[in-house]
Amino acid sequence: MAWAHWGCCPWLILFCAYAWSHPTPVDLAREDVRNCSTSPPHLPVTAVNTTLRLTALRQKIQAWNLSAYIIPDTDAHMSEYIGRHDERRAWITGFTGTAGVAVVTLRKAALWTDSRYWTQAERQMDCNWELHKEVGTTPIVTWLLAEIPSGGGVGFDPFLFSIDSWKSYDLALQGSNRQLVSITSNLVDLVWGSERPPVPSQPIYALQEAFTGSTWQEKVSGIRSQMQAHSKAPTAVLLSALDETAWLFNLRSNDIPYNPFFYSYTLLTNSSIRLFVNKSRFSPETLQYLNSSCTGPMCVQLEDYSQVRDSVQAYALEDVRIWIGTSYTMYGLYEVIPKEKLLADTYSPVMVTKAVKNSKEQALLKASHVRDAVAVIRYLVWLEKNVPKGTVDEFSGAELVDKFRGEENFSSGPSFQTISASGLNAALAHYSPTKEMHRKLSSDEMYLVDSGGQYWDGTTDITRTVHWGTPSAFQKEAYTRVLMGNIDLSRLIFPAATSGRMVEAFARKALWDIGLNYGHGTGHGIGNFLCVHEWPVGFQSNNIKMAKGMFTSIEPGYYQEGEFGIRLEDVALVVEAKTKYPGSYLTFEVVSFVPYDRNLIDVSLLSPEQLQYLNRYYQTIREKVAPELQNRQLLEELAWLQKHTEPLSANAPHSTSLASALLATTLAFLIQNS
Amino acid sequence: MAWAHWGCCPWLILFCAYAWSHPTPVDLAREDVRNCSTSPPHLPVTAVNTTLRLTALRQKIQAWNLSAYIIPDTDAHMSEYIGRHDERRAWITGFTGTAGVAVVTLRKAALWTDSRYWTQAERQMDCNWELHKEVGTTPIVTWLLAEIPSGGGVGFDPFLFSIDSWKSYDLALQGSNRQLVSITSNLVDLVWGSERPPVPSQPIYALQEAFTGSTWQEKVSGIRSQMQAHSKAPTAVLLSALDETAWLFNLRSNDIPYNPFFYSYTLLTNSSIRLFVNKSRFSPETLQYLNSSCTGPMCVQLEDYSQVRDSVQAYALEDVRIWIGTSYTMYGLYEVIPKEKLLADTYSPVMVTKAVKNSKEQALLKASHVRDAVAVIRYLVWLEKNVPKGTVDEFSGAELVDKFRGEENFSSGPSFQTISASGLNAALAHYSPTKEMHRKLSSDEMYLVDSGGQYWDGTTDITRTVHWGTPSAFQKEAYTRVLMGNIDLSRLIFPAATSGRMVEAFARKALWDIGLNYGHGTGHGIGNFLCVHEWPVGFQSNNIKMAKGMFTSIEPGYYQEGEFGIRLEDVALVVEAKTKYPGSYLTFEVVSFVPYDRNLIDVSLLSPEQLQYLNRYYQTIREKVAPELQNRQLLEELAWLQKHTEPLSANAPHSTSLASALLATTLAFLIQNS
Repeated sequence: MAWAHWGCCPWLILFCAYAWSHPTPVDLAREDVRNCSTSPPHLPVTAVNTTLRLTALRQKIQAWNLSAYIIPDTDAHMSEYIGRHDERRAWITGFTGTAGVAVVTLRKAALWTDSRYWTQAERQMDCNWELHKEVGTTPIVTWLLAEIPSGGGVGFDPFLFSIDSWKSYDLALQGSNRQLVSITSNLVDLVWGSERPPVPSQPIYALQEAFTGSTWQEKVSGIRSQMQAHSKAPTAVLLSALDETAWLFNLRSNDIPYNPFFYSYTLLTNSSIRLFVNKSRFSPETLQYLNSSCTGPMCVQLEDYSQVRDSVQAYALEDVRIWIGTSYTMYGLYEVIPKEKLLADTYSPVMVTKAVKNSKEQALLKASHVRDAVAVIRYLVWLEKNVPKGTVDEFSGAELVDKFRGEENFSSGPSFQTISASGLNAALAHYSPTKEMHRKLSSDEMYLVDSGGQYWDGTTDITRTVHWGTPSAFQKEAYTRVLMGNIDLSRLIFPAATSGRMVEAFARKALWDIGLNYGHGTGHGIGNFLCVHEWPVGFQSNNIKMAKGMFTSIEPGYYQEGEFGIRLEDVALVVEAKTKYPGSYLTFEVVSFVPYDRNLIDVSLLSPEQLQYLNRYYQTIREKVAPELQNRQLLEELAWLQKHTEPLSANAPHSTSLASALLATTLAFLIQNS
Repeated sequence: MAWAHWGCCPWLILFCAYAWSHPTPVDLAREDVRNCSTSPPHLPVTAVNTTLRLTALRQKIQAWNLSAYIIPDTDAHMSEYIGRHDERRAWITGFTGTAGVAVVTLRKAALWTDSRYWTQAERQMDCNWELHKEVGTTPIVTWLLAEIPSGGGVGFDPFLFSIDSWKSYDLALQGSNRQLVSITSNLVDLVWGSERPPVPSQPIYALQEAFTGSTWQEKVSGIRSQMQAHSKAPTAVLLSALDETAWLFNLRSNDIPYNPFFYSYTLLTNSSIRLFVNKSRFSPETLQYLNSSCTGPMCVQLEDYSQVRDSVQAYALEDVRIWIGTSYTMYGLYEVIPKEKLLADTYSPVMVTKAVKNSKEQALLKASHVRDAVAVIRYLVWLEKNVPKGTVDEFSGAELVDKFRGEENFSSGPSFQTISASGLNAALAHYSPTKEMHRKLSSDEMYLVDSGGQYWDGTTDITRTVHWGTPSAFQKEAYTRVLMGNIDLSRLIFPAATSGRMVEAFARKALWDIGLNYGHGTGHGIGNFLCVHEWPVGFQSNNIKMAKGMFTSIEPGYYQEGEFGIRLEDVALVVEAKTKYPGSYLTFEVVSFVPYDRNLIDVSLLSPEQLQYLNRYYQTIREKVAPELQNRQLLEELAWLQKHTEPLSANAPHSTSLASALLATTLAFLIQNS
């Protein structure tokens, strides 16, 4: 989630490390995009009229004596996905892409977004808005300095700014005689008024004990132990990310798309537990579960969500030290804590503790992946039968895999918007089909499906790429090398506490060897019915070191622009490795159980070790998934699984040819001489 | 050189990333170490009486109204090696180890050093000194806070503090009511007085044109172009590291052990070139070479070395912006430049430019490595004959390899103190033999020699490990896997601008596979008659990205404590890689030309690709070195080279066995039935 720092779409954390897409200029002669240079301007039907909204917002800006107001794309928790009532930037601009920052001055309005969204912005914005094809603080501040007078104030909502964003704007404005002005009343909300979608109010529920790794009391005690053991003696931990509070209390709800979270903050002190949330959302049973009627150190005191800033500020007046993770704490809380009362790490102790799953959590996550494999295999079997009929498209396909997942036990919906991409669409970084815009699946091209589910026991994420016809030699070569990368990283043995960054190149080497690569990261953590992209595990430079019990995705790919895209993604558990000489070594145990596409594997490229690994993995898939298919009488799927997990063998190896040649020569010799 | 930041011996940049050695407590009952707990204390003959020195220093501390004074282990340029007159910490403590910080208060004196030096410190220090077995700012500041009163001042020489050290002390002292006090007169020097070794005064000379990649005028113009092209419009570049000025002007001298440098700073502005140096060290010809008689933009104005601070301060009063590399700029210069007039990068443009060698510099460095190989091969041949006689020891061996190098053309001495280590000594991180303390070489144990030369055309660094008898199976396995790591990294193909950190694990994988590893980094940059450890190229996280034209060492190893040590180090040039599909890819071209020890290679462990690479490398060695040996009539060495570069072949491969078996079966069958 910290990826919002970089002005990047949350899911695309993986895609932020590199500039993937090559931007192509938007053709303004097209009917479906705006053209503000004609008179009158051409506006497509998709453009939103923002004149009245901007007039109203400018009145607020003037009333606050500001020169400009910044509207970021995040919520007050740096969530990966945001609720509709938090889509302020979309409402004020008309542009609904997930990444983009808007700034409104008294005269102008401007949006900054990256190349993935330029066309969409030209379709959705009216001519009140300038489009800036850049991202980051620097271009915004450069523009601001030219647009607003010296002495001008730049307003912002401190709950929509991370500490780092604030520091970055503050640094860029230093010495310019323009000041950042923190205003806790969001000016867009004031203008949005009754049109704004309501804040969610559905019940917040406790997970059944069968689906939790430890009780909330055990988790609270564990975090308090870390506070006590810390040399800087923090008296409290402040939690801002929604999955931190959801994890700590084993509570879930449905406020955010794809994530079972509820709006909340937690201030866990050495003597109290203060949960900031809309109290009316708890049933009497859940209130009892939280011991919310008492005030002892193991009772959860409920305070209103809106009170968090005042409460933290009041707490910080005492002789305390508050432990935060700077990556997920909003400036609105940071600014009310005196610096000498802060213990600031990059990640909170809850974030770091949550990253390592205990044995029960591991078993739960694995079990969810077995059922998830059943859904994906059902989908692949169905595709194999139906794609040749020409009746399947990307969107209906995505709906079907979501439906199959929904039929699995403990299902709670998809864990992100399914990426279902055929042919050249699979080479686009941010592609998801819509009911209106999609491509037909065909035996003539490759198809990539990247999807996942939320289940009460775990969150899943898997990508498979298939071809039902005759792939080109290049497609087979690229696919096989992506697979080789996946295998090489999955079977790597590495010392405990190695950072992912140091080993992720093993997933790239087979591609590098022939001059290919992929423009995204190699994996991310994943939760137990929590985030599908669970920070801070992964292979980026700001991920924490690998430890036994962590789960990460492993997902190399290859993308040929305008032609096809390949990604092979599995989720893997970090486990102890047995080495010839004793030592503390780790490796991965893959827990995604869907075979790769035999049609796309060039076995001759695989080393004996890679082949051995692959066949062992296929054996594991059979052991895990076949009984499940059998139990449910999914016999067609069972047959498909057996066929697709048959051991692969190297093409007629050199040894055999040599032996055959020798045999022939010998026979010829003997026959001649007999 | 930036490694001094981490309180680590310069050479051991590679060894700083990990805690290599397992510290063993010093046995105080030993005669050769001090024992301050007896009465009277036991002091070995090696201990230095520092009572008078400390009394004199404390008078200065009091005169300056300070409570404490910090004495670091660096010089005013963050040099890897320091001159004798800069060995202030050694003089005041008695302890001569290269890493360690001393602090003197009015009552106490203390030294902080790492485990490599604990025994040496107990041998060399008297009981005036506390030994603290820790490193870093935190333990020093914790001690200071306990020892000095509130309001006390902590003096330091700002030319012996990097910007980062200063920031680190300043941060740790914040809120403690103890202040850092910057004093440009070094208090130890005042006490040291006439006993202090003189500052070097030998001539500074210009390199012959044959040994330079470009003229100093071309280099100056290149750096000025970078200044002009920079968006922040710097008006000057300030150079503090000695190799920056030596490189820029193609000047050399001999002020620092193993490094052909001279004490200097440079302020290169857009209209002037100001070289701060002892002017009397230039001959009339060199003065003419520098156009030092004029004041135009291409004339070098000489100013006295001691004037640099005042001159930079005066320059900073103008409307200027000074570009520095923070890694090598001392606090003494940083503190006189207002922050808004600073353009601070991690490395200066000279440091970054110097890292990429042009084609002439590449050819020069390669040529020096061919001659260097001759010296090393002569040594290995000599060892092969003489070690079995039992007449060779580590120290006489080191002297001999240095002597052989000295006989090569353009030789200018060793590039660092030769590490010549037999048996268990090779497992010690910081081992070099002395005339007094050394081990005899023997056919019964492994021998590691890590050595290098300074030549007018290039600097070299190579490590070979050999065994003249029968190595154990484990030794062969470990050696072969170190070699596999060296090969795997050397032949890796990777995208342009990849950081070394991302790929260095390829040098470790073969060891990791069986639970082995090494506790140091994998390589460092190297210069053209400059530093043997030339920053900022290498495989650490703070190295810059790999680019065509850089040189780096590649040096995996394995160390079995108390038994043996293995390191195989080559220098390699970063070159463009030809890939099947077009793209900007790089790989390494190894330019060290000494074969590995066949006696220690288990060929059956090598993959066909590794074996092929190795045999191609051996072919290159023959092509490069054999003609050189032939020309010099070094026929014994030539024969040795031929023998040691014979192509290696895999043990009877599976294919042959299979073929033989089939053949046998067929024959048996035919004979039976004929």
